[in-house]
Amino acid sequence: MAIASCQQADDASMQNGVTETQASQSRTATANPENQSISFADTLDALATKIDAQITVPIVVPVPKDAGGGYTHEQHKTNAKTIYEAGKLFEFTGDDRYAAFAEKILLAYADMYPGLPLHPEQKEQSPGRLFWQNLNESWWLVYAIQGYDSIKNTLSSDAREKIENDLLREITTFLSEGSPETFNKIHNHGTWATAAVGMTGYVIEDQELVEKALFGLDKSGDYGFLKQLDELFSPDGYYNEGPYYQRYALMPFVLFGQAIEQNEPQRKIFNYRDGILRKAIYATIQQNYGGLFFPINDAIKDKDIATAELQYGVAIAYDLTGDPGLLSIAKAQGQVVPTKGGKKLADALARGEAEPFDYTPMRLRDGAAGDQGALDILRASNDPDDLAVVVKNTSQGLGHGHFDKLGLLVYDAGHEILRDYGAARFLNVEAKFGGHYLPENNSFAKQTIAHNALVVDETSHFNGSTDTGNKFAPNVGPFIISDNLQITSAEIETAYEGVRIGRTVAMISDAAFAQPIIVDLVEARSDQAHQYDLPFYFNGQMVETNFEISAEPVSRTPLGSDNGYQHLWRVAESAAVNGNTQLTWLLDRRFYSVTSSVPDNTKVVIAEIGANDPNFNLRREAAFIYRARGDGGASFASVIEPHGEYNPTVEYTSDSHSSVKSVTHVGSGAAEFVVIETRDGQQIGLGVADNSEAGAVHTISVDGQEFTWTGPYKLFHSQKHMDEGK
Amino acid sequence: MAIASCQQADDASMQNGVTETQASQSRTATANPENQSISFADTLDALATKIDAQITVPIVVPVPKDAGGGYTHEQHKTNAKTIYEAGKLFEFTGDDRYAAFAEKILLAYADMYPGLPLHPEQKEQSPGRLFWQNLNESWWLVYAIQGYDSIKNTLSSDAREKIENDLLREITTFLSEGSPETFNKIHNHGTWATAAVGMTGYVIEDQELVEKALFGLDKSGDYGFLKQLDELFSPDGYYNEGPYYQRYALMPFVLFGQAIEQNEPQRKIFNYRDGILRKAIYATIQQNYGGLFFPINDAIKDKDIATAELQYGVAIAYDLTGDPGLLSIAKAQGQVVPTKGGKKLADALARGEAEPFDYTPMRLRDGAAGDQGALDILRASNDPDDLAVVVKNTSQGLGHGHFDKLGLLVYDAGHEILRDYGAARFLNVEAKFGGHYLPENNSFAKQTIAHNALVVDETSHFNGSTDTGNKFAPNVGPFIISDNLQITSAEIETAYEGVRIGRTVAMISDAAFAQPIIVDLVEARSDQAHQYDLPFYFNGQMVETNFEISAEPVSRTPLGSDNGYQHLWRVAESAAVNGNTQLTWLLDRRFYSVTSSVPDNTKVVIAEIGANDPNFNLRREAAFIYRARGDGGASFASVIEPHGEYNPTVEYTSDSHSSVKSVTHVGSGAAEFVVIETRDGQQIGLGVADNSEAGAVHTISVDGQEFTWTGPYKLFHSQKHMDEGK
Repeated sequence: MAIASCQQADDASMQNGVTETQASQSRTATANPENQSISFADTLDALATKIDAQITVPIVVPVPKDAGGGYTHEQHKTNAKTIYEAGKLFEFTGDDRYAAFAEKILLAYADMYPGLPLHPEQKEQSPGRLFWQNLNESWWLVYAIQGYDSIKNTLSSDAREKIENDLLREITTFLSEGSPETFNKIHNHGTWATAAVGMTGYVIEDQELVEKALFGLDKSGDYGFLKQLDELFSPDGYYNEGPYYQRYALMPFVLFGQAIEQNEPQRKIFNYRDGILRKAIYATIQQNYGGLFFPINDAIKDKDIATAELQYGVAIAYDLTGDPGLLSIAKAQGQVVPTKGGKKLADALARGEAEPFDYTPMRLRDGAAGDQGALDILRASNDPDDLAVVVKNTSQGLGHGHFDKLGLLVYDAGHEILRDYGAARFLNVEAKFGGHYLPENNSFAKQTIAHNALVVDETSHFNGSTDTGNKFAPNVGPFIISDNLQITSAEIETAYEGVRIGRTVAMISDAAFAQPIIVDLVEARSDQAHQYDLPFYFNGQMVETNFEISAEPVSRTPLGSDNGYQHLWRVAESAAVNGNTQLTWLLDRRFYSVTSSVPDNTKVVIAEIGANDPNFNLRREAAFIYRARGDGGASFASVIEPHGEYNPTVEYTSDSHSSVKSVTHVGSGAAEFVVIETRDGQQIGLGVADNSEAGAVHTISVDGQEFTWTGPYKLFHSQKHMDEGK
Repeated sequence: MAIASCQQADDASMQNGVTETQASQSRTATANPENQSISFADTLDALATKIDAQITVPIVVPVPKDAGGGYTHEQHKTNAKTIYEAGKLFEFTGDDRYAAFAEKILLAYADMYPGLPLHPEQKEQSPGRLFWQNLNESWWLVYAIQGYDSIKNTLSSDAREKIENDLLREITTFLSEGSPETFNKIHNHGTWATAAVGMTGYVIEDQELVEKALFGLDKSGDYGFLKQLDELFSPDGYYNEGPYYQRYALMPFVLFGQAIEQNEPQRKIFNYRDGILRKAIYATIQQNYGGLFFPINDAIKDKDIATAELQYGVAIAYDLTGDPGLLSIAKAQGQVVPTKGGKKLADALARGEAEPFDYTPMRLRDGAAGDQGALDILRASNDPDDLAVVVKNTSQGLGHGHFDKLGLLVYDAGHEILRDYGAARFLNVEAKFGGHYLPENNSFAKQTIAHNALVVDETSHFNGSTDTGNKFAPNVGPFIISDNLQITSAEIETAYEGVRIGRTVAMISDAAFAQPIIVDLVEARSDQAHQYDLPFYFNGQMVETNFEISAEPVSRTPLGSDNGYQHLWRVAESAAVNGNTQLTWLLDRRFYSVTSSVPDNTKVVIAEIGANDPNFNLRREAAFIYRARGDGGASFASVIEPHGEYNPTVEYTSDSHSSVKSVTHVGSGAAEFVVIETRDGQQIGLGVADNSEAGAVHTISVDGQEFTWTGPYKLFHSQKHMDEGK
């Protein structure tokens, strides 16, 4: 795979450099997006207030000295944003003071830049001159060039010449010819560089720079922006590291894309690779629930769609498509960017043109060719707060990837129901390991047992090796969306030697249940004896089990000693009853039950995160874990069922008990069948075939009844319909 | 104290009897109150949809048989609501079908009621006939009589006579003469009875019933509604058991009050006792944060202001006062009641007349005479999500009271910051001990160590005896609200034998801090040696301490064996540094630090709830506990400081470290002084005098500087002003 590792992208504070004022605005907006009316005039007013204050004090352009987070680092970031914002203010208000202010800062940089050596704190193979990293230098130019573009027509020819020759040409030369190892890299750092150089090329009318940016230093097309577009996104617009890094990587793509469209529309960049830029923006939006990105891989869980990158993305996509669903996203973001696209959004919102965004079930294939697994998303409706399921059938996701092949996330009623821990990190919180990824990110958060994913013999997938993980992706089965059945499956035989793991996840609507339910079939096949642990990180308060279980009252010990197990307390352990277990928990105003057919002699372990956590770095979250041993493998067939209502306002509770009486799993391999029986005697069946051919016919006998279906999956509706299926 | 115990009020599902449809509406409304437009037409439409469906099926009036929660119990509740709702629908739509439907049900009850003996499942000394409890019977009549009132003019004289003679007179006789032990009780159960009988008296024009309801069976005035108004609320409208039970008790008061006003305006009932009914409604509203009632005593923590009782309360109060702030409360409630008052609210909201409700710092005195302590509320502003403090200087609160004298609750940014556990109960959740109070309510939630309150020698206040607790209330000091200083203090010497406990809590605004801070001075005086534990149940993730502390990595043991300590895990223990400790945690987007001057050799214990909890009944919440030993007492002077911003949207963090360098506490007894020094060298001082006389002059020497003030408290602003104070 051509996508390189991304260790440095975690200097995430670099990506936007917003000021405290903006941060506060955004906080309010996010907390209460629906109450916020978005006006472009307000956007400009807020910027003007900020820049007006800066105009009155001397500009500060210090000699580069400090590493990331240090004074000169932060000051140069601030200056780039100021050039951009002053430029945009001039563009929209025509007030010369703003143009003069941007010019003054640019001239100060033009004075300094030619004399700058490499940064004294150079961090890696690709250092910058203003900053310790080349990445930051590109970021700086992406902002500064937009500001320069806005004001260049106001400049004297002397000033223009000085800024272009001493600053812009100097820095583009440095970022291109001077840093080939980054510029020619097929990696998001490379995209920041090509975007910075290419956007500058258009503004200073240097087509040579544009060509290099598009096609690589040698203009062969083997490198450069188009190649990056070919390889960094899957054909469905999925970014290999997952949505947290996708929204970060998105920024230079959409900004340079927009510059190409404006300057050379004949390139039809937004049609390139079947509209990959538009797909990437939409895929980013689809990968959220309740406004928060799916927290797969190393992700800060409270990262939301109001992030600056996606504000630009939405403005640009709306400009392209006019899709009124994007207006809902802009509304949820609570503010718009100070660009023509941002103005379009704000004006359309003011005209009341917003429509609900079309959240929809989808398979996002992974890998440049789309053959490296997939992120599968099931949704009960286009309501962003309705029942949704994410199955992580993707490839490893490089250095930020977690070892959770075929991992499961479930959302409902605006909440996480079965949750993913995300990254162990307090971003930018100095007291927490300098704001970096914590040691517990490796020792716990990345490990398989930290996820709703099958663990064999208490070790992690690929033995916890990222290099090994990067080599293998799951094989995905058919992905089918129909009215009453959404279903996906995948399998992988490389996560553990000698063990083939498969998972089929379905969302089913049936008259026997008031709300859709989820069927989750996890299977392992092996010739050797193994222990299988299947965790469910449930969110809420346990209220009921159908087996006796009692939390150890006066002591806690860790569940294991390695691979993440050392961070789990063993809270309770019990034997499942008659191969069927049922657990119910309460979250907010709804109950959730998991009823499972499990192997004989399965134990249920209740665990809580928090052991071996001397520095209070981990959140206290709970899981139940099915633990089975098997000579030939193990199958776990579960129904995940939202039900009932707990209403403290009117002190009313309904349907607090699961409707599921039993779950039965029959067959293995070629044809399998899951039967769900409800307490009032209705039965629902789900047939799953190993052979995914549409025309293949499958028959299975369940308690003496034969069920036959054609194709990979078949849902047999409650009793009346079950008969039909025979 | 004349307020009797209230063990039965926990059949809370009785209080409103809403249907599933209503419950769902309310849930939506509460989740997103701001998005909801409230129209009275919609209110009626929703009712009509429900009643229209019922009209088509036969009415069901079963012979009473089942206990609370059983079939006949629920069916009679439903019928009362139906009579009420059909009546209101007729009143507002004029559609005769609704009147006829209500009549039909009432006639069916008139057929049955005269022959009914006491309920077969009679629960207590005051049984009902339709229900196992007299309380439910009163509740039934309160609803039914309102429905009857709406339709009585449509009835034939035969029908009217039958309903009045065979049902209404029968039931009022039963509830009054037939149940003197309840009717004459100064207790909210008594109020349900007097309200039911009195409201019926007005409707059937039987002034004798009204007189008995107002003045007791013997009409002496020693009992009855007016006496209940005299004794069940404090002069400030505070209800002794706290807000969770206050909103429940409120219902019959406001409904009967309204009936009196309409029928005998000359009684000026809303001016009675200096407007106690209005005060009670306003006090109920003031006792919420973020829409949730302060969870002191036995409280379901997610009980919100959308509760039916307060919907009636707001409609009635708005009718009385026209206060546009009440419209904001109605808006937050998300719906209005189907009454003339409800219509007024909806119409005014539609005209856009809502103004912010005036949340304000206040002392709510406790006890009929206002001399049984007080609930003290400090608020940084009238923004309902701004910094707020509750100090529980109240009396015990009877059988539902917790042992947390001088307990502290802190709120900020819409969240609990220092929190109270509330009740250990999952209301109406059958699998959790039938929905009743859990055993852990007594063994943990009521105990002192479960609160932010001082514990002596690991025992609870009053040795955990409610009877003892009911005898004693704290002595409150002055309560002062000024621009930069809000302050309250109280002390109690009866919670522990031989120990006098005091707590002074101040909210301070000073230029040295970006946001207001809280000063919390807790002191114990004793002639004997004791151990003092002061817990802070912080909400969030610990990020920093100024002392070395390490969580025990591989084991947990309970912190103690009794009085609630058996439910706490000992997570870590460390020694405080130089008498000053500082802990910082992160919640949502803000940091919170507590910096404390503590006695020499104080230990800091980190604890987590969850030990001895075999049935997973307790929530996992954390506290840090200052543990000191002292021969003459102990003083803990803390600054509680919201600071900084953690913004994951724009990946920006500011001021994650506390601004407090040190807290110093000087003096004891007559005059005391707390000095707060910030990291940038500013000093703030707070003088606190034991003598609360306004004219008393106090002087204290701090590090050789003398500070003098007049009156009980004085704030010395940062450095410049500190000098002035000398």
